[in-house]
Amino acid sequence: MNKFFSETAENAKTSAVREILKIAQSPDIISFGGGLPSPDAFPVEEMKAVAVDTLTESGYKTMQYGTTEGLVPLRNLIVDLMDKRSVKTGVGNIVITTGSQQGLNLTGKVFINPGDKIACESPTYLAAISAFKPYKPEFCEVDMDEEGMRMDALEALLSKEKIKIIYTIPDFQNPTGRTMTVERRKEMLRLATKYDVLIIEDSPYGELAFDGDPMPPIKSFDTEDRVVYLSTFSKIVCPGFRTGWICASEEILNKYITLKQGLDLHTNQFSQYMIEKYFTTYDVDAQVDKIIEMYKAKRDAMITAIEEHFPKEINYSKPAGGMFVWAELPEGMDTKEIFTKAVERKVAYVPGGSFYPNKSMDNTLRLNFSNMEIDKIKVGIKILGELFTEEINNR
Amino acid sequence: MNKFFSETAENAKTSAVREILKIAQSPDIISFGGGLPSPDAFPVEEMKAVAVDTLTESGYKTMQYGTTEGLVPLRNLIVDLMDKRSVKTGVGNIVITTGSQQGLNLTGKVFINPGDKIACESPTYLAAISAFKPYKPEFCEVDMDEEGMRMDALEALLSKEKIKIIYTIPDFQNPTGRTMTVERRKEMLRLATKYDVLIIEDSPYGELAFDGDPMPPIKSFDTEDRVVYLSTFSKIVCPGFRTGWICASEEILNKYITLKQGLDLHTNQFSQYMIEKYFTTYDVDAQVDKIIEMYKAKRDAMITAIEEHFPKEINYSKPAGGMFVWAELPEGMDTKEIFTKAVERKVAYVPGGSFYPNKSMDNTLRLNFSNMEIDKIKVGIKILGELFTEEINNR
Repeated sequence: MNKFFSETAENAKTSAVREILKIAQSPDIISFGGGLPSPDAFPVEEMKAVAVDTLTESGYKTMQYGTTEGLVPLRNLIVDLMDKRSVKTGVGNIVITTGSQQGLNLTGKVFINPGDKIACESPTYLAAISAFKPYKPEFCEVDMDEEGMRMDALEALLSKEKIKIIYTIPDFQNPTGRTMTVERRKEMLRLATKYDVLIIEDSPYGELAFDGDPMPPIKSFDTEDRVVYLSTFSKIVCPGFRTGWICASEEILNKYITLKQGLDLHTNQFSQYMIEKYFTTYDVDAQVDKIIEMYKAKRDAMITAIEEHFPKEINYSKPAGGMFVWAELPEGMDTKEIFTKAVERKVAYVPGGSFYPNKSMDNTLRLNFSNMEIDKIKVGIKILGELFTEEINNR
Repeated sequence: MNKFFSETAENAKTSAVREILKIAQSPDIISFGGGLPSPDAFPVEEMKAVAVDTLTESGYKTMQYGTTEGLVPLRNLIVDLMDKRSVKTGVGNIVITTGSQQGLNLTGKVFINPGDKIACESPTYLAAISAFKPYKPEFCEVDMDEEGMRMDALEALLSKEKIKIIYTIPDFQNPTGRTMTVERRKEMLRLATKYDVLIIEDSPYGELAFDGDPMPPIKSFDTEDRVVYLSTFSKIVCPGFRTGWICASEEILNKYITLKQGLDLHTNQFSQYMIEKYFTTYDVDAQVDKIIEMYKAKRDAMITAIEEHFPKEINYSKPAGGMFVWAELPEGMDTKEIFTKAVERKVAYVPGGSFYPNKSMDNTLRLNFSNMEIDKIKVGIKILGELFTEEINNR
């Protein structure tokens, strides 16, 4: 029956990363592949009490259809969260999404016409590429350095091409782990205003800052509703509840609401009620501090092991937060080829090529540290270090 | 910032029904407007135990990222449910969706190219129209009678136009409440094979049969993977969990899975675990019987009141299940105009015009009975009967 498929379905290919992660799921493999939070970060016991209290207090409402924009008490809670992140906003500027992934998909639907040009970091978040791609944009990659997207490269692009949208992950970026400085955040907004471009700020990891306070979002400097800000409870509560949000002007959110209707009517009510209850019952700041402490120790273990075992030809990022380290092997090497050998030695990572919408930078890779125990991080990085050393020597 | 909107967003209009339902939400209004299950149908107390047991037994897994196709134990349970519905299938033929609405949206993404022709009942489900519309199909309405879509009208269409998809709600259709006979189900499949057309069978209400056993789905007669079957837990457990499913060939489901990835990665894990636990712990058949008994009494109350109070010029359906009654006023009358007067008298319904993708049959309306108490049904129908009598007399 494949003759019935739409052009979109014909072009939709199972992501290479997805196939790779399937291989890496075997329990005897040390996997730096996925982008999963640590299971130790989830408040499982607390959620038992939260579930019972929620059903006792809010009863059938937690199981009924809800509004597309989301539960008002949860949206009010997010207004407070945004205030902590230095963004002054109101309940009308918040819409609940079924995870940040739905926020990305809706962003594509709301803004992208075929051929529209999107500036993004090079490399950028794989699932954003796949969320936007069905709307047929043209991706324009902007070079990064250790301080995130380079503003000189961005301005060079903006002055040359008619860019409609800048898509950026300023905090502990997926996949590189890099963070944009405050100066660059302000500069990006200045450039966006100068060239009349919309900014999509995607911040799933913003609060997971290991070495100091979280950075102010670009949205916090936005005085003209030019920034659409996406975030999620996936990294500070849990991803299984698929609950995220968008913060933007009411005019923009009206379009998100209308188009979300057709996607899933509304986000899971029970999870919305539970998250709200969890925040009002427990000390979530303390829980986030616990996650930060846990991930920081894992990051330290990974960076220390990399310093010890990776050959000096490999460059890598030293993330100040989040979940990922990025590494670059010498040019011409192919981490997809080396992947097979790594899996034979029972270690997995994500080859970096898929994170570039256009370029083929196959000498790169992403390493996740949040979802692996420290002992295994040490062993796994040692094995990868030995393998990479052999591969570099045998070039 | 509306200059940044995509063409899709420009064309997306807030649904008239949505605005109408907002008006009707005031607690002093007797509303036959929404399509909500009765809150008394939800197993709130049971879910407290289910939530605690789920978190105790499956722990962090209920809060972690999951697979796009959905939880295997839940999909196995759906295989058994499908077997009860006379469809023999396997776990590889089931994908979990974020409500049936996501199933409809994905169906549009997987199959519809701009200009593709879709045959559907006239009238048909409003949210299916809005789910398909962004993919720019042409809707071809097929006349109905009390036994559902008319097969002579369908064949006349198929022989004249190149139809790609038949979209049908054979059981207690939304909005008409009508049910297709077994003979027509078989005939639709025969015609689909003859003219090489795909069938999308949407069955959210199939189990809610008041006057005898549920009908066998069209899918139960399908020997060549020509039918994509959509269903949901919304009407037999609750809609707030946003959990539905698709049953189709693996070849077709692979496309659904790939495209669902970009939509929301996967459906809420906690709800999937809870529904599975609920089914394996409690007697869900008995619960569904309870819902049927409750809705049947409401349907009876509504039909009796209509017989007593509606003027003889109004035709109406007598649904054998589901949640809706459909009524047709004399031609030329406009239920949108009368709606304002009905709301003044504190009763709401949904004007029927929006359920027609092309036609303007503004003399129709939909009445929901599942979400209103029997006393209020009697009062509300009496008020509507008086209003309609006045309006017909004053034509």
